[in-house]
Amino acid sequence: MITKVIDGKKMARNIYSELKKEILSLETEEGAKKIKLAIVSAGDSDAGKVYINCKKRACFDLGIDVEEYSFGYEDTSRNLINCIKSLNIRDDVTGIFVQLPLPSMLDSLEILSSINVLKDVDCLNPLSFGKLVFSSFDKDHDFAPCTALAVLEILKNLNVDLCGKHVVLLNRSNVVGKPLAMLLLKFNATVTICHSKALKVAKFCKAADVVVSAAGVKKIVTGDIIKNGSILVDVGYTRDYSGKICGDIDVDSVYGIASCLVPVPGGVGPVTVAMLLRNVILAAKKLNYGRH
Amino acid sequence: MITKVIDGKKMARNIYSELKKEILSLETEEGAKKIKLAIVSAGDSDAGKVYINCKKRACFDLGIDVEEYSFGYEDTSRNLINCIKSLNIRDDVTGIFVQLPLPSMLDSLEILSSINVLKDVDCLNPLSFGKLVFSSFDKDHDFAPCTALAVLEILKNLNVDLCGKHVVLLNRSNVVGKPLAMLLLKFNATVTICHSKALKVAKFCKAADVVVSAAGVKKIVTGDIIKNGSILVDVGYTRDYSGKICGDIDVDSVYGIASCLVPVPGGVGPVTVAMLLRNVILAAKKLNYGRH
Repeated sequence: MITKVIDGKKMARNIYSELKKEILSLETEEGAKKIKLAIVSAGDSDAGKVYINCKKRACFDLGIDVEEYSFGYEDTSRNLINCIKSLNIRDDVTGIFVQLPLPSMLDSLEILSSINVLKDVDCLNPLSFGKLVFSSFDKDHDFAPCTALAVLEILKNLNVDLCGKHVVLLNRSNVVGKPLAMLLLKFNATVTICHSKALKVAKFCKAADVVVSAAGVKKIVTGDIIKNGSILVDVGYTRDYSGKICGDIDVDSVYGIASCLVPVPGGVGPVTVAMLLRNVILAAKKLNYGRH
Repeated sequence: MITKVIDGKKMARNIYSELKKEILSLETEEGAKKIKLAIVSAGDSDAGKVYINCKKRACFDLGIDVEEYSFGYEDTSRNLINCIKSLNIRDDVTGIFVQLPLPSMLDSLEILSSINVLKDVDCLNPLSFGKLVFSSFDKDHDFAPCTALAVLEILKNLNVDLCGKHVVLLNRSNVVGKPLAMLLLKFNATVTICHSKALKVAKFCKAADVVVSAAGVKKIVTGDIIKNGSILVDVGYTRDYSGKICGDIDVDSVYGIASCLVPVPGGVGPVTVAMLLRNVILAAKKLNYGRH
């Protein structure tokens, strides 16, 4: 079997051209109302800065304004919440994104709960999450966490019919595993959620039609634990001893066994940023252009 | 193997004696502030009435006041929301419960979203659900949907260590499957969520340490599809041709194979009502007695 390796950058580029057209047609039809994303972060992690720069660059390319609010380790939850509350009520700010994880001394739940759900482009407020779970999901109308959205978008692009498929997730975080599980159920997949305390992970992977791994453990998914013809989606992100970016999937060993591989780097990551931008435009459409 | 059959009624009685002591000690220490549950329902389903009567009787036995608000098919979502909003701000009402399912012409999501989260004793508001998912869970402090709580309480009573166990859920509803999956993850179980569109359900059950079935399909779980020594929890509720209440589990065929069976009737049902009452007292403690 030849394993098809997905080019996430190319997929993201295609999404951006669609989004550019959408912004143009909105401005033509309804006048140049502005779209502005506010990015809130705290602490000084290098990874956080890299992710924020990706998002800023994507906004720049689409002509979307960005305002950045960076807090230091001395700042309190209250400082972030006050910032978010002022962004919530500003007419010119149409989307708010908080870069996670926040430093552990901050109350993430309280901070994320303060985001106006109409501007909550990464679905970080627990109210946004609850509404996503309780309602039917329509990507043209509802926000969802962007990494989960990216995995779904890639599977849709591959024409995977999820109905009845067994999807095994190696992650139970609030931003990947849990929202992805909830979304996959809406597409009638059968979902197994594994994590660091799970036993017999190999057995679950061996039975899976699709494995989505965000364990953050280098080469945890190997050729001997997967099913012939399965689809592998890598959402891991670590570095090897030489500083090279690695995913969870041992590419060499799964090659020829998996039907399809979404690699790290260049797979889910770029599509995740594109999904954020899609949500930013969706928020602006709903807020500025009265499109619901 | 002798299959242990769990007596949910007895377990519920034990919980009620604890709750009675708790109410007494609260009144002794802090003075007789009142606890009152408001039950909101719509439509005239017989099942709904039966469930409401169970809850009223349990409240009566514990000396908890109940107010009932029954709406007809001609009532609108707005009528229910206005009722809930007035209950939200009344000091004497400490808990609000909406009997589900609501008639399909009503906007359940909007109605449930209007419940004050401090009084949301069955965790029906999507904000309550999101907060439950995003935070660590402590039954002495946080609400959770009562059926899911009841399953956990029974497993705790059986001294099941969920860490690393494989739990298969035959249900993906907002009140059973989804919240139960989210809670089981907090106890480090590996969780598979099946549903009516799932394929190879028998294979999943055969691999499971614990099967929780709320499919509403009579005798869907049979001896030949379960693992030796597994724990079976029935949350199904149907009636056979003679009108007798049936669960999802084929009791005769699993007997001697399962290590433990939580049957229908007399299993999860009575414990669910006890969990609701525990949450009603928890809400009153937090609201009236300042215990957080």
